[in-house]
Amino acid sequence: PDTAASQGAEERNGQLTKPPGALGRLEDLAIWYAGWRGDARPQISAPQVIVFAGNHGVTAQGVSAFPAEVTEQMVLNFQHGGAAINQLARSAGARMDVHALDLDRPTADFTQGPAMSEEELLAALQTGWSSVDPEADLLVVGEMGIGNTTPAAAIACALFGGEAADWTGRGTGVDDAGLANKTRVVAEGVALHGGNGDGLEILRRLGGREIAAMAGAIAAARLLRIPVILDGFICSAAAACLERSVAGALDHAVAGHQSAEAAHRAVLERLNKEPLLSLGLRLGEGSGAALAIHILKSAIACHSGMATFAEAGVSDG
Amino acid sequence: PDTAASQGAEERNGQLTKPPGALGRLEDLAIWYAGWRGDARPQISAPQVIVFAGNHGVTAQGVSAFPAEVTEQMVLNFQHGGAAINQLARSAGARMDVHALDLDRPTADFTQGPAMSEEELLAALQTGWSSVDPEADLLVVGEMGIGNTTPAAAIACALFGGEAADWTGRGTGVDDAGLANKTRVVAEGVALHGGNGDGLEILRRLGGREIAAMAGAIAAARLLRIPVILDGFICSAAAACLERSVAGALDHAVAGHQSAEAAHRAVLERLNKEPLLSLGLRLGEGSGAALAIHILKSAIACHSGMATFAEAGVSDG
Repeated sequence: PDTAASQGAEERNGQLTKPPGALGRLEDLAIWYAGWRGDARPQISAPQVIVFAGNHGVTAQGVSAFPAEVTEQMVLNFQHGGAAINQLARSAGARMDVHALDLDRPTADFTQGPAMSEEELLAALQTGWSSVDPEADLLVVGEMGIGNTTPAAAIACALFGGEAADWTGRGTGVDDAGLANKTRVVAEGVALHGGNGDGLEILRRLGGREIAAMAGAIAAARLLRIPVILDGFICSAAAACLERSVAGALDHAVAGHQSAEAAHRAVLERLNKEPLLSLGLRLGEGSGAALAIHILKSAIACHSGMATFAEAGVSDG
Repeated sequence: PDTAASQGAEERNGQLTKPPGALGRLEDLAIWYAGWRGDARPQISAPQVIVFAGNHGVTAQGVSAFPAEVTEQMVLNFQHGGAAINQLARSAGARMDVHALDLDRPTADFTQGPAMSEEELLAALQTGWSSVDPEADLLVVGEMGIGNTTPAAAIACALFGGEAADWTGRGTGVDDAGLANKTRVVAEGVALHGGNGDGLEILRRLGGREIAAMAGAIAAARLLRIPVILDGFICSAAAACLERSVAGALDHAVAGHQSAEAAHRAVLERLNKEPLLSLGLRLGEGSGAALAIHILKSAIACHSGMATFAEAGVSDG
């Protein structure tokens, strides 16, 4: 981040017509955003939401309440504007792009071997990397992939340790027997692949194409100085692989929403991110982060639009 | 609320292309809003933000970090578009109105006698009542009034019991000595007026004109079936007077934001309202509720804009 811009934003914040600190986290967000954009009085006019879709070999183990063909059906729904994320992106004034990654070629079942080859991982990272609009000034990445809370749980368990049960939740809604089966699958995957190398190797062995694409997009955004709002459990697992590979890799990111998926809170705590919202969503698609675009836009609207005490002729206490 | 519209909205919610419950509180909000609007597939296109301003005789007791003339200075700032609430209202697509209530005639110091006469209370309630646009489809009421966390704390203490210290906070930022003084003032006011009649009589004796105007507007909105988003500590104290007078008087209202003012959480708990946001704001002006307009608009955008499983050709698990 640009120290001069951060300092300029902090000075401006102290002159605005409000008691010191009275806008709470909006003030911190504005100063943080100003630093990353290199502009002490920035605007947000071009947010981008990208939804990546992938299919997972591990669905053969019966880990999801929905059939795998729903991934492709939902991609069509995204393209036709019918999904929740379409409404949320439009409502937030964001451009939305959809990238389906080889849906007819699911990843390998990670209980049998690595989910992806090195070539497959690189191709997925590259898709994510190149999907970021360099002109965007805020980025949300979301995902669709039936079964993908299972790889996300496996990634979290491999990165952060503990038991498979600590990281495995109900996803879109498996029952108790389904949860037990899913926990077994996560445990088997971590037993087979855990402790193998750094974050990107864990991503390759336990992740999925849409998860890797999210990581690629988040990394590209950092290079482009585009701040990122992290979405839920799966997005955070993707992001955690980057942070494991390069400490500080997520300094340009805030957590948008704490998912109702039980282990998300723990992942955010490990990443030292306090979510902006907690409204019980557990949908993925980038939905929670898209909601949080409004919070960031509002923070910047206040920061860059308010009058100073001097401008308004208000006594500053 | 309209039971047929609520039921229609609940049915529609169950058919939308998402796992059941995956939009969390957005789903409950949409169904609740549909009921109050009498429309199973509603839109939000005309939110209204109204800021009421008043001055308080109790500032003679030195309860605020800011001088009383700041109330009027901030009214000018609202009118010129320079305050936080101007940016937040614009960002949320809301119309904003400002009503200054007899700023040159502060209420009486409630440690000496009732803050308002019956005529003054009625006039303030009436200003609030008549300021609501009957064509609005969502209402936020905010306030500006140097010193007004003191009457709000006194109202909360009179309504809910406990000690003055339980309800008295730092407002815009008094120091420890200021907080002790403010607590004494609240205790004196409650000792003089507490236990006097119902919510409206407590509002008259311990409140202020802008607080009464907020109550009047919230009551009018209910008659007009306009859902309300409650703001912070002062707005919630105003609303609590209505609830004390008529149980259920706030069924058309949700809590927008939990203020950093310490006692706000306790007031919301007594009102049985779970705040939508908690971002550390403690500004008043309607700022927290204005932020939450985005959440409600997003909930309705999803509810009314998403495709159903049948429309999108998606398998529903």
